[in-house]
Amino acid sequence: MFLREHWYVAALASELSERPIARTILGEPVALYRNERGRVVALADQCPHRGYPLSLGTVVDDVLVCGYHGFTYDCEGLCVAVPGQDRIPTKLSVRTYRVLEKGCWLWIWMGRGDPDESGLPDTPWLEDSTNWSVVSGVAKIEAAFSLLVDNLLDLSHETFLHNSSIGTPEVASTPIDVEVDDASRIVNVYRHMASVECPPFYATTTGLSGSIDRWQDIEYFPPGFYKLNSRIAPVAQPPLPDGTDDHAFHLKIFYGLTPSTETSVYDFWALSRDFCVGDVAIDVALEKMQVSVVQEDVDALNIIQQRVNSGREMTEVSVKIDRGGLAARHMLAQMGEDELTHPPHLTA
Amino acid sequence: MFLREHWYVAALASELSERPIARTILGEPVALYRNERGRVVALADQCPHRGYPLSLGTVVDDVLVCGYHGFTYDCEGLCVAVPGQDRIPTKLSVRTYRVLEKGCWLWIWMGRGDPDESGLPDTPWLEDSTNWSVVSGVAKIEAAFSLLVDNLLDLSHETFLHNSSIGTPEVASTPIDVEVDDASRIVNVYRHMASVECPPFYATTTGLSGSIDRWQDIEYFPPGFYKLNSRIAPVAQPPLPDGTDDHAFHLKIFYGLTPSTETSVYDFWALSRDFCVGDVAIDVALEKMQVSVVQEDVDALNIIQQRVNSGREMTEVSVKIDRGGLAARHMLAQMGEDELTHPPHLTA
Amino acid sequence: MFLREHWYVAALASELSERPIARTILGEPVALYRNERGRVVALADQCPHRGYPLSLGTVVDDVLVCGYHGFTYDCEGLCVAVPGQDRIPTKLSVRTYRVLEKGCWLWIWMGRGDPDESGLPDTPWLEDSTNWSVVSGVAKIEAAFSLLVDNLLDLSHETFLHNSSIGTPEVASTPIDVEVDDASRIVNVYRHMASVECPPFYATTTGLSGSIDRWQDIEYFPPGFYKLNSRIAPVAQPPLPDGTDDHAFHLKIFYGLTPSTETSVYDFWALSRDFCVGDVAIDVALEKMQVSVVQEDVDALNIIQQRVNSGREMTEVSVKIDRGGLAARHMLAQMGEDELTHPPHLTA
Repeated sequence: MFLREHWYVAALASELSERPIARTILGEPVALYRNERGRVVALADQCPHRGYPLSLGTVVDDVLVCGYHGFTYDCEGLCVAVPGQDRIPTKLSVRTYRVLEKGCWLWIWMGRGDPDESGLPDTPWLEDSTNWSVVSGVAKIEAAFSLLVDNLLDLSHETFLHNSSIGTPEVASTPIDVEVDDASRIVNVYRHMASVECPPFYATTTGLSGSIDRWQDIEYFPPGFYKLNSRIAPVAQPPLPDGTDDHAFHLKIFYGLTPSTETSVYDFWALSRDFCVGDVAIDVALEKMQVSVVQEDVDALNIIQQRVNSGREMTEVSVKIDRGGLAARHMLAQMGEDELTHPPHLTA
Repeated sequence: MFLREHWYVAALASELSERPIARTILGEPVALYRNERGRVVALADQCPHRGYPLSLGTVVDDVLVCGYHGFTYDCEGLCVAVPGQDRIPTKLSVRTYRVLEKGCWLWIWMGRGDPDESGLPDTPWLEDSTNWSVVSGVAKIEAAFSLLVDNLLDLSHETFLHNSSIGTPEVASTPIDVEVDDASRIVNVYRHMASVECPPFYATTTGLSGSIDRWQDIEYFPPGFYKLNSRIAPVAQPPLPDGTDDHAFHLKIFYGLTPSTETSVYDFWALSRDFCVGDVAIDVALEKMQVSVVQEDVDALNIIQQRVNSGREMTEVSVKIDRGGLAARHMLAQMGEDELTHPPHLTA
Repeated sequence: MFLREHWYVAALASELSERPIARTILGEPVALYRNERGRVVALADQCPHRGYPLSLGTVVDDVLVCGYHGFTYDCEGLCVAVPGQDRIPTKLSVRTYRVLEKGCWLWIWMGRGDPDESGLPDTPWLEDSTNWSVVSGVAKIEAAFSLLVDNLLDLSHETFLHNSSIGTPEVASTPIDVEVDDASRIVNVYRHMASVECPPFYATTTGLSGSIDRWQDIEYFPPGFYKLNSRIAPVAQPPLPDGTDDHAFHLKIFYGLTPSTETSVYDFWALSRDFCVGDVAIDVALEKMQVSVVQEDVDALNIIQQRVNSGREMTEVSVKIDRGGLAARHMLAQMGEDELTHPPHLTA
């Protein structure tokens, strides 16, 4: 039901402190905290004694003390103290999860198999503060993961759902190209809007005016990582064959799609830009706009999920704009079959 | 489970504008709006593309644009625009429902068969503003339709549930007469209170004082239309054989009972009077009183439904005051059987 | 599923007046009120007519009038008035429950068999205001009865869950002794903390300072009555062999554990002390502290129940501190079997 043998975003790095936070990821409750040495620890969020969430406990030095009866676990999940007795039950422990902090995001491995670090997405744009300015956030959506995939793979909805902010008529009216890379497991959706009016936000921040070329190129790495390459450039000045693209302004919009339960999903986001780098006022404006956009998605997907939950029959008609979403569904289904038929690799 | 081949009240006429409203009627989500020419349109409230409610869309000229991806439907429910392409999928459409506006109420036909306009209730008292002053409203009750039928068919509850407003001891203590007209499908409940004290509201508005005759004559047209003929008159001055009743004051209390889901119902109401016609202060006083009375019904029925929902066994003991309600139940059950055994008429 | 043939606390005596209150006890809705002569009446909280809760009705003299249609019941549950007719249906009545008021608590017998007054717990400490000062209260917990039993039988949680008020490190670190009296059906848990620091509250109220002996001796009488004997005394001055204990200060903490539904429980409490008797300021301080402590239990148990409700697998590991709780579970299970195999005694 969930694709387990993958990395997912579990938290914003900024959310982590010695005060634990609670997440439910792929149906499993997880407690996350940063210990005194700055290392992030992720534990199964349930004390084996009487089931109390460990995330309600207290971090003392490097150990986590359960808030109900004081059972205490170290960073490896091993129980190191029990109330009322000195002897600790043999092998009493909770599962820990491998986590990796990269820029503004914390990634977690929920798999049954060994963590595969080679599968961790590359995110240099979130880690290089000299050349890229980043804002980030997270929302919880009470809707199935698949509804968020549909949403992000078809940006024509910007014109309607986000019409007061990022949506312009050209987004919906411009046809898309879709490329599916089954070997690398990437779904690409390209929308190149040529010679369109420069939206006010970009006019202000880039100095461009009049007509521009505006590209929205999606790279989706199922299941949990999505990158939207937004390119704003003077008309008819494409990137050079070697990839340099000095006339253009780039805004990269990242999403970490992390299933929580069967009917809820975390929507992590990060915006990284190579213009107005270090300009805090632009950070604030971009964050405000994105929070508003994400809330519009949250509201829409919550409503659709409520329809599904009501037991109402949901018909579905697909058109050309849906090709990206349909390709993503197909790839996810294929990955689900693969996971069922290929047991995860486990170190003895 | 629902009686479908009937007219139901769907909305107050005053609720309708170019901003769509959402209703769930007989379990089906319906979007309602008034187009630029003033005509009311009712559509299935679900875009066939990805299931988003059309009621969250925008009316542009005479078409409704889905708020998610911009699929656009005309007043006949036909899809007339799709994002990202010119070709529209053949026969892509949503169901429309026949609606009719009569006075303060909008009626809808939810049937599988052809709309039967001969079955539409007569409501001249809601349409003749020269001789009748009308106030209207609607409440949603989180209780089964049948609980509202029980409530309205047995007005002895006025004495207890509405004791601070319309209830007087005589309502509960006066026996009722019940007449069932199976051919016309009407249940009549008569309660004639002779020579009772004039309640303050009527004393103020009619000029009567001391003892009066007060009649409460119910006509219930199952499933969805209910008329309470309230007659206030000097003692022992009944209507003439030809029906003229000039000494009396008439207040007609209409209810439109519209099942929403199996456990919720819309309670539309309208009060029409032939005295103090055009007196806005009396409108305001009557509306305020009725809103309060309806809220008392809402609260009581919600509580009973919560009991039912809890799975608790609900015994039932019936007495004479329940004869109207039992007759209504019987007629509704009969109509349900008829609907099952007689398929609705459909024009080829 | 519930142990029925036992006394449970149904209400605080102070909650009862001529305005009925509603309780759900062992899954049954009960209406409770005090009639004009001061006697408490408990009735099944559902009018047999149309299922409306009688607790929403009005007490008139000694009878209870249903708030929907006015069906009226006397203190024995017999119907004495029906609207619209003089004849009352034969044997129309609601069940009444035997209740007994003892000090600050009202006890109810929910059994199928005859009330067994010999089984009513002794609570002289709640009834003797000359020698004992009492404060009392109640909270509703949205968690199974069994979770409250677990909570109260293992006080090591005080150190962690109630660390800002009654918890000190010694509670968790001091081993317990457990005695199970199967004949009398009592579970005893003893925790004698010798020569520990006197908590500020006791220093202020008892005049003791420096080191003290602090005992917490639990007597649990399954299913519904729990007594925690808290003893504060100078070091090494145990009670005399005849039981006199003049050097010590005693605070008795009572709980009435009353299952409401399968997943909710009333947590009645009463604190009775033999020091600062009559000192209202101490009453207020103790009540405030206890309300805060109970709320911490409520929050913790609600959270565990939510985990159970989510369908998540709840493992359980038990250690020495759990011996009291495990003994209680065992005794409750035994009593459940007894109740199934021994039908309750019924007077013909």
